[in-house]
Amino acid sequence: MKTYNYSDLTKQDIARLVQRNVDPANEIRTIVEEVISNVQQHGDRALYDYANRFDKVTLDKLYLNKHELEEIAATVLPEQKAALDIAYQNIYRFHESQLKAEDKVETMPGVTCWRELRPIEKVGLYIPGGSAVLPSTFLMLGIPAKIAGCHELIVCSPPQKNGKVNAFIAYVALMLGIDRIFLAGGAQAIAAMAYGTESITKVDKIFGPGNQFVTKAKTIIQSTTTTAIDMPAGPSEVLVIADDTANARFIAADLLAQAEHGIDSQAVLVCTSQEIAAAASEEVEKQLAVLPRAEIARQAIDNSYIVVTPSLGEAMSFSNQYAPEHLILATEKWQEITGSIINAGSVFLGNLTPESAGDYASGTNHTLPTSSYAKAYSGVSVDSFVKKITFQHITADGLQNIGPAVQTLAELEGLHAHANAVGVRYNPS
Amino acid sequence: MKTYNYSDLTKQDIARLVQRNVDPANEIRTIVEEVISNVQQHGDRALYDYANRFDKVTLDKLYLNKHELEEIAATVLPEQKAALDIAYQNIYRFHESQLKAEDKVETMPGVTCWRELRPIEKVGLYIPGGSAVLPSTFLMLGIPAKIAGCHELIVCSPPQKNGKVNAFIAYVALMLGIDRIFLAGGAQAIAAMAYGTESITKVDKIFGPGNQFVTKAKTIIQSTTTTAIDMPAGPSEVLVIADDTANARFIAADLLAQAEHGIDSQAVLVCTSQEIAAAASEEVEKQLAVLPRAEIARQAIDNSYIVVTPSLGEAMSFSNQYAPEHLILATEKWQEITGSIINAGSVFLGNLTPESAGDYASGTNHTLPTSSYAKAYSGVSVDSFVKKITFQHITADGLQNIGPAVQTLAELEGLHAHANAVGVRYNPS
Repeated sequence: MKTYNYSDLTKQDIARLVQRNVDPANEIRTIVEEVISNVQQHGDRALYDYANRFDKVTLDKLYLNKHELEEIAATVLPEQKAALDIAYQNIYRFHESQLKAEDKVETMPGVTCWRELRPIEKVGLYIPGGSAVLPSTFLMLGIPAKIAGCHELIVCSPPQKNGKVNAFIAYVALMLGIDRIFLAGGAQAIAAMAYGTESITKVDKIFGPGNQFVTKAKTIIQSTTTTAIDMPAGPSEVLVIADDTANARFIAADLLAQAEHGIDSQAVLVCTSQEIAAAASEEVEKQLAVLPRAEIARQAIDNSYIVVTPSLGEAMSFSNQYAPEHLILATEKWQEITGSIINAGSVFLGNLTPESAGDYASGTNHTLPTSSYAKAYSGVSVDSFVKKITFQHITADGLQNIGPAVQTLAELEGLHAHANAVGVRYNPS
Repeated sequence: MKTYNYSDLTKQDIARLVQRNVDPANEIRTIVEEVISNVQQHGDRALYDYANRFDKVTLDKLYLNKHELEEIAATVLPEQKAALDIAYQNIYRFHESQLKAEDKVETMPGVTCWRELRPIEKVGLYIPGGSAVLPSTFLMLGIPAKIAGCHELIVCSPPQKNGKVNAFIAYVALMLGIDRIFLAGGAQAIAAMAYGTESITKVDKIFGPGNQFVTKAKTIIQSTTTTAIDMPAGPSEVLVIADDTANARFIAADLLAQAEHGIDSQAVLVCTSQEIAAAASEEVEKQLAVLPRAEIARQAIDNSYIVVTPSLGEAMSFSNQYAPEHLILATEKWQEITGSIINAGSVFLGNLTPESAGDYASGTNHTLPTSSYAKAYSGVSVDSFVKKITFQHITADGLQNIGPAVQTLAELEGLHAHANAVGVRYNPS
């Protein structure tokens, strides 16, 4: 792997290294806008047409029902069911802990303020299909939606050529108590959930990863409709911080787990030990040779790099500038440095915590901010499926306590009717 | 005011009544894109030019320093300072309660997951100036940013014709410990904070209300840069739910407090009592006559309406479809109906809790989702200024417990390197 010496890098070099291509898909905007407008105008009809055109299948209805999902799911093996069950339970347990009632705060005598959670009523989950079948993503979105108590879950996934979805997707739907999957993929699925069609309910928020067409469609509907999205998305990435207590084999395995996602994935190693860096680079070549997805991983590795730093402090500084989706602390001293993490999506601590545990089954969510969005965004959680509504109650005494300040502030902003809304209440005759 | 009988309304009528114009400003996109591109290319130079062109002032530097802010703030009266102090304390107290450490969760023996808060490092606050001077907005954004611990606060506010900001804005800056305000307004200020200039740091997230140019600029930078925004914004609005225990004078005062904001504000009354509805409508006319901003309020009231419903149940159903920014429950029975609130930004309970208390000083935030965005968005809080990063740690035993499930799931998704990242760790030689 390409290796840089941190001490040789200028500020500009570092800025260039941590830079990702924010919007590689801008050239497809016109295509996606046409798809959205077509779905908006023609509804279900457009979805049937796109299934024909893009998914090469003629559908006789736009969804699979519970009975059909059960038939499809029948081929899932007991061992696979057991693994999905473990993932379900751990993800449920961790996400359940995020749902907390908040205390009331009496900010002044007689003035009480608090927040209450309410689920977002209608949410849309996009589950990719085709070459990348991701039942884990379905769990990561469906479980927090269930815990939040969202009233309506619309699930879209592209149909395979046989007009069905993959058996694992069907099985997860049944685990989640979802008895309908809409057979729509790509930008057309996003448009259908944002505008609604005869069959598909317009939702308040859309979640889920997808190819560049899906991502572009989400960005467009976010700025042109009232439907929200989970977060902007880019290619997946990992940054490993390592020192001389790390294991080069483990590091290489983690870098390759990232690299096999796609040719645009990035796997960065920031390491205080020249020896470990060299050994990890060598291990990458060795492990790469036997990978089924070696061709993809090779291109991603060519697009990745190693930085050797004088200390863990510089390593963390580089990482904070990169703001990685996944951050692995491959050091026995991880407890000394977690406090200095500023920007990251999800963090994996120590030499025995592989990212793939969090991708599937440890309990944390794998829908995370990429492309340096971790500077301002958090990953998906139960929070993503609820609103926090503020409430306040003021007593007669409270009004006497707070009223004069409100009137003064309203008058200084020139808003007399605001002051009056307090004034009329002093004398409730 | 226009009054509808709920029982006469069809589903389509209701859908039309709750509809707001989502993006009235789309025709200004080209102008705003030009401003953004100009700031991106010419930095500070463009900001000086726009100050000349739009704010009619020739600046000799782009910011006010602490000394200048102190001079400007000297004209604030003691009574006004006292009111700002009360607001500061209450807002601080309520927002402080939102900052909570979370528990660690052992999802399986040896597998521990948790979340830690980290402040967003660099945030930009846009504080409107000119005709609408809003020190309250500065408090509502600055206080949670301080509580969250954001490292760098960039504040932009348009210069007045004398090259300064209003005294209240200067005073609030000093209250917040902010010793620099950049003299930039409109789309150019948003562009400067999103891209950075020679003087202004590029920020990770931009907060604050503004005119249609500011709003459009925020929407554009959200979808074209990695800088996030607080939320999409539209005209302010209130919905009052009332029954025969309400006071028509109070209702009218609340409707007019909303109406005086701007001609595009909306004030809706949903009422179970024909008498109260009629009395409130009459009171609106009476109170309107003596308002300084009567001309603005009149136009907003013409754009508003009353719906008379058979019961509080239908009233709440209408309100949930409308998803108001502000919801006032003008009834002594408010405790019976808060549970059925699904969509709202901030809720004001009972007859003695005016919205203007929350606008200024009770403690809740007044930066709230408008235009039905309350279906998916929450108002600004300390949450808006932090990221919640997930952490996980797995022990050697934990790896034995979770490893096989991770390997099975990785293999069924066809991701062999993901499985391998677990496998290599079983035997750490």
